Amino acid sequence: MSNEVLALAQQLISRPSVTPLDEGCQQLLAERLAKLGFINESMVFDDTTNLWSRRGSQGPLFCFAGHTDVVPVGDANRWHTPPFEPVVIDGYLHGRGAADMKGSLAAMIVATERFVAEHPTHSGSIAFLITSDEEGPFINGTTRVIDTLEARNEKITWALVGEPSSTHKLGDVVKNGRRGSLTGNLTVNGIQGHVAYPHLADNPIHKAAPALAALAATQWDNGNAFFPPTSFQIANINGGTGASNVIPGELQVMFNFRYSTEVTADELIAKVQHILDVHGLDYDISWTYNGLPFLTDTGPLLEATQAAILETTGIQTDAQTSGGTSDGRFIAPTGAQVIELGPVNATIHKVNECVSVADLELLAQCYQRILEKLLC
Amino acid sequence: MSNEVLALAQQLISRPSVTPLDEGCQQLLAERLAKLGFINESMVFDDTTNLWSRRGSQGPLFCFAGHTDVVPVGDANRWHTPPFEPVVIDGYLHGRGAADMKGSLAAMIVATERFVAEHPTHSGSIAFLITSDEEGPFINGTTRVIDTLEARNEKITWALVGEPSSTHKLGDVVKNGRRGSLTGNLTVNGIQGHVAYPHLADNPIHKAAPALAALAATQWDNGNAFFPPTSFQIANINGGTGASNVIPGELQVMFNFRYSTEVTADELIAKVQHILDVHGLDYDISWTYNGLPFLTDTGPLLEATQAAILETTGIQTDAQTSGGTSDGRFIAPTGAQVIELGPVNATIHKVNECVSVADLELLAQCYQRILEKLLC
Ligand SMILES: [Zn+2]
Ligand SMILES: [Zn+2]
Repeated sequence: MSNEVLALAQQLISRPSVTPLDEGCQQLLAERLAKLGFINESMVFDDTTNLWSRRGSQGPLFCFAGHTDVVPVGDANRWHTPPFEPVVIDGYLHGRGAADMKGSLAAMIVATERFVAEHPTHSGSIAFLITSDEEGPFINGTTRVIDTLEARNEKITWALVGEPSSTHKLGDVVKNGRRGSLTGNLTVNGIQGHVAYPHLADNPIHKAAPALAALAATQWDNGNAFFPPTSFQIANINGGTGASNVIPGELQVMFNFRYSTEVTADELIAKVQHILDVHGLDYDISWTYNGLPFLTDTGPLLEATQAAILETTGIQTDAQTSGGTSDGRFIAPTGAQVIELGPVNATIHKVNECVSVADLELLAQCYQRILEKLLC
Repeated sequence: MSNEVLALAQQLISRPSVTPLDEGCQQLLAERLAKLGFINESMVFDDTTNLWSRRGSQGPLFCFAGHTDVVPVGDANRWHTPPFEPVVIDGYLHGRGAADMKGSLAAMIVATERFVAEHPTHSGSIAFLITSDEEGPFINGTTRVIDTLEARNEKITWALVGEPSSTHKLGDVVKNGRRGSLTGNLTVNGIQGHVAYPHLADNPIHKAAPALAALAATQWDNGNAFFPPTSFQIANINGGTGASNVIPGELQVMFNFRYSTEVTADELIAKVQHILDVHGLDYDISWTYNGLPFLTDTGPLLEATQAAILETTGIQTDAQTSGGTSDGRFIAPTGAQVIELGPVNATIHKVNECVSVADLELLAQCYQRILEKLLC
């Protein structure tokens, strides 16, 4: 078995590219791609380094999407091996980013090299959209590259995002969409006072409690074949001066929706405000749109991915929309089909992150097979 | 009109006795009392200075109670006059402690001087119980003096506390009791997780909201002729990591009861725990007993005070139990009757604290008349 994927993954992991740093990872990828005839564009926005690399000028445009940044190492003492010194133990490559997602990047590159070698005159185009802020605030990364592409009307047909989608075995799960994410910052206004004089005060915690209970008990939708029901979670609640004898003047509540395609952000906002109004609250609220839900429920990309996984691994993959957000949310609104396929995610964002070396090679074969199905 | 009360109040205010400091105030009082035949005992506990001063060895024992410490000045720039440089403007003595309660202390001393001059062989005994931590944590003040007196079986019959009880006119309100105060520190336990995977987490805010709503809506009692209904107030609530995508693992809630004599602390605790249990919460709770409720609804002290106010000011006083706690809660459990009578409290604990100079003289006359009614 070839060690090409492993070797490149190790080169990438040894660069300590903690978000938003890239530490030369993209340069490494760009050099490999340049040899294949890719045209590289480095797009630097503030602290973020992005790479847009394309081979061919015709449609359809197949795009590998991913990130070179990694999350911090966390408690360094709990790593059994130094996080930026990649090492293989018992068939697993250890190091920060091994599974999320330098292993995927290595598999993409090797898959493309093999594919181009066999099919130098493939149809359509191949591109790489690589950022260094997927693990950070995702302000200067994929979203700004997409803005740039949109401004020049360069359209991605199919995006394969390398996020670690697999749960137990490589390919057992792909993500064919993501829920939307919407955050609300609520301030419930009351009147501060002394607990000994409650008639002179208006306790915002007391006023808010039934409304929060109603929000927590609300069934927002029932989901559908592709999405679980919309979920509402209060992430933060804070009120009070710390003293036991002061009724606070306001209460701060931050909550988050992960929502299905059965409801829109505007509908959720209207429903929340209705519940707050029904409970007679005096409040201010602001909303952050973290991402619209998207779904690739049919089409060539999903079919090619399912078939490639079956042929390579023997697994009938399960297309899911659960889990956190990904940069797919920035690509999908352009009209692109988006699928996420990557290694097993059991250790991502944890100490002793690792990935199966055999899976990396399998993943490269999978990616190559997808290219063959779509561009041959 | 005599300026004796004003002069002593000014001497006391010019000493910057921010809690728990005394700054020589008690020494000043002790010197005046020694001249009248009082026996002074200074009782220093940790950072707190206390004075126990007594004239006579027989019962009944009438006791003036009060404090020499003051609250901090707050925003010094908002004072129109320096807070520790007492000055009379338009008939009002300005300075930190003018109303709470150095004016009362001055009136007590002058009243006692005049009374002893006229009645050197009065019946019973007169005492002063003065602390310097009423505005602080009240750990080393009145409560420890009372412990000392109890240990030697020295019993106060009637305690007149000089806290500023009046609301609009001197004597319009006296306090003949206080509600109990009970604080609960509640931790609601959940399971931390990511908002994208709510089925793996257990949101303690969601679980607590209906229980808190139930607590806030509960009618604990209906009060009685002397006490308003028991009041429950959540003073602090805190949960969350600050991030919008993390379901917190626990929620902290601090609440306070101000309770009537219709209910006991133990009954309140049992009711709260029942409500938490009914809502299926996993929780830890700890309780702080801040003070038992007390009431002096009849008896010679209340009658003497009401009559003295009527004769001195023409006002039919209103005996109330509302408002915050006072050191009376430490004296009452010994079996003493306790009444609080002091100047108008409109400016206490605020910038530009002040007291009517005329009221100080009236207050001294009131105090003197009470002594006459009880000890002649
Ligand atoms: Zn990732
Ligand atoms: Zn006071």
